[in-house]
Amino acid sequence: MIEKLVSKIDEKNAPVVVGLDPSLDFIPDRIKRESFREYGQSLEGAGDAIYRFNKEIIDHVSDLVPAVKLQSAMYEKYGLQGLFSYKKTIEYAKKKGLFVIGDIKRGDIGNTSRAYAEAHLGKVKVGEMTYEPYGEDFSTVNPYLGSDGVRPFIEICKEYDKGIFVLVKTSNPSSGEFQDRLVDGRPLYEEVAGRVEEWGKDLIKGDFSEVGAVAGATYPEVGKVLREIMPHAMILVPGYGAQGGKGEDLKPFFNKDGRGAIVNSSRGIIAAWQKDEYKEFKDDIGMASRQAVIDMKEDILNALLKKEGSLWS
Amino acid sequence: MIEKLVSKIDEKNAPVVVGLDPSLDFIPDRIKRESFREYGQSLEGAGDAIYRFNKEIIDHVSDLVPAVKLQSAMYEKYGLQGLFSYKKTIEYAKKKGLFVIGDIKRGDIGNTSRAYAEAHLGKVKVGEMTYEPYGEDFSTVNPYLGSDGVRPFIEICKEYDKGIFVLVKTSNPSSGEFQDRLVDGRPLYEEVAGRVEEWGKDLIKGDFSEVGAVAGATYPEVGKVLREIMPHAMILVPGYGAQGGKGEDLKPFFNKDGRGAIVNSSRGIIAAWQKDEYKEFKDDIGMASRQAVIDMKEDILNALLKKEGSLWS
Repeated sequence: MIEKLVSKIDEKNAPVVVGLDPSLDFIPDRIKRESFREYGQSLEGAGDAIYRFNKEIIDHVSDLVPAVKLQSAMYEKYGLQGLFSYKKTIEYAKKKGLFVIGDIKRGDIGNTSRAYAEAHLGKVKVGEMTYEPYGEDFSTVNPYLGSDGVRPFIEICKEYDKGIFVLVKTSNPSSGEFQDRLVDGRPLYEEVAGRVEEWGKDLIKGDFSEVGAVAGATYPEVGKVLREIMPHAMILVPGYGAQGGKGEDLKPFFNKDGRGAIVNSSRGIIAAWQKDEYKEFKDDIGMASRQAVIDMKEDILNALLKKEGSLWS
Repeated sequence: MIEKLVSKIDEKNAPVVVGLDPSLDFIPDRIKRESFREYGQSLEGAGDAIYRFNKEIIDHVSDLVPAVKLQSAMYEKYGLQGLFSYKKTIEYAKKKGLFVIGDIKRGDIGNTSRAYAEAHLGKVKVGEMTYEPYGEDFSTVNPYLGSDGVRPFIEICKEYDKGIFVLVKTSNPSSGEFQDRLVDGRPLYEEVAGRVEEWGKDLIKGDFSEVGAVAGATYPEVGKVLREIMPHAMILVPGYGAQGGKGEDLKPFFNKDGRGAIVNSSRGIIAAWQKDEYKEFKDDIGMASRQAVIDMKEDILNALLKKEGSLWS
C-alpha cells in the first residue's frame, strides 16, 4: 500500500493529507438545516450533516491530494450513527481515488489488537462469510503496550496489503511528558522510532515500509533525528496549520529528494471557510477548503524547494 | 462513581470484574445457530450472537460481582453491528445493577480526546438536544500522549460523575519494552503512576479517586510499588487466569484492608464452559461462568485472607 501512496504523492506533487475531523461547529447552517429537517436534531442528523460536509470537501480536493485522514473520535462521538458516516466517508473517498488513513490510535494486546486491525484494515469471518467492516488503507497505532500491541497490526498489513503509522512523537504540548523522557540517554520517542524501523523491515516496498510513524510538525527539531533513525518509515506529520506548524518547520521530516513525509491539516482546511482569509467563499466549504489546500501545498513545496538538493528544486 | 463501585465491591465481597470480551469461538453453536437463522452469517448475525451470549453470562453472574468490563475491540471487530451489541450489552448490564467499564484504551489530544470521553462517559449535543452515545460508567485511557490526552477524560469524569483507569503497566509479555525503561533511575510506569495520583487528586471520593490505573496481574512485584505511588488509585488488574495471573499474585495490588484493586478475568470466565474443569455444564455458558466466578472469588479471597492484617481475615 505504501508504494501506491508514494506514487500518488509524486503524481499529485502533494505530500499533503486532508484531515476530515468534522465538528458540528465547522459545518455551515445550510447543511445542518437540511440534515436536521430530514433526521431531526438527532445522532442520525449529526451523522448525516458530517457526511454531507465531508462529501463537499472531498469533491473539491480529491484532484489535489493523495489521501484523507479521518479522526475516528469525531465520528465515534455521535455513536453508531457517527460511525456510519465514518464508514460511508471511507467508501466515498476511496471511490474518488483517495487513500484513506483511519486515525484511530488503537493499541491493545494479542487477539484484541488483532480484532482492531481486522476491523479497520482487514476482514472478519462470520461462519462461512467474510466482511470488511471499515476498509481503511492505513491506520494509526499507539505503541505504549509494546510489540504485542503493534505486531497484530503488522500481520494484518502483510495479509491485506495495508499500512500503519505508529505514534512516535505526537504534536501536542504535553507530548514530552512521557515521550521525551530520557532512556539510556535518549528520548523515549527515539526508542519507539528504533522499533518502528525494526517492525517495518520485512514490509519494505520500494523506498518505504508499510510501517510508518507519526511525528508532529510542532517539533521540527525531532524530524531530522527521526529521519535518520527510521530511513524506511514514511512520517505522517500532524500539527500543521491550526496547531502552529509551518511549511518551513516541515523540512526536517523530508528526505533530500522531497519524499518521506506526508503532512496533515484538518481544521486549517475543512474549517477554512470560517477564517477571514477565505471569507470571500462565504459558506462554500468546498471552494474554501480547495483554496486552503492550494495554499498549503504552495507553502510546503516552497519550503521543500529551499531544501538543499531537493529533487523538487 | 468510584465510591459507588467500592461499596458494591464490599457489598458483594468480590473485587472481581467479569470481562465480556466475546469471540465467536467462545459462543456455543446453539446460540450462533439461532442468530444466524435470524440474521444470516452476517455482521448482524455475529453481533446478535454476541449479545445473546453476553446476556446469558450477565444473568448468571450479576448477583456475584460488582462490574463487567467490555473490551471494545471485540465489538468494533464486527463493525457497526458489533458496536450495536456493545451498546445493548452496556444497557443490559446496567439494568442488572452492574457497573460497566468500557475497555476502550482511547487516548488522543484536546478536543479529540474530549470527543472520545463524551462518547463513552458523557453526553453530546446535537442542536438543542442531548444524547448519551454509549453510557459506560468507567473507561480505560492510554497515557502515551501525556496530560493533554488524559485531562479531557478527567473533565468529563468531573462533569458526569464517572471514572477512568489509566494504563500504567499492562499485563502483556512485551509491556516492558517501553513501560519498564528507566527514566531518572525508575521505570517509566512509575512515572505514569505518579501522574495518575496527581491527575486524580481533585477527584478523590472516599478513599479513592475517580482516576484509577491498570496494572497487570502478571507483574505482581509491580503491584506493591504502585500501591505506594498511587495511594488513591483503584487498580484494575487484568491478566488473571488465561494470561497466567493467580490469586497469590494479586495480593500486592491490594491494601491491607483488602481494598484498592479489582481483578478482571475474561476468557477464564466467559469461555469456562470450554474447559475440562467445567465440562459438566456442557454448553450452559451461564452456569459454567457462574461457577468460574465463584472459584475465582474463592481463590482471590483466600489469598487476601492470608494477607497480613487484612480486614477480610
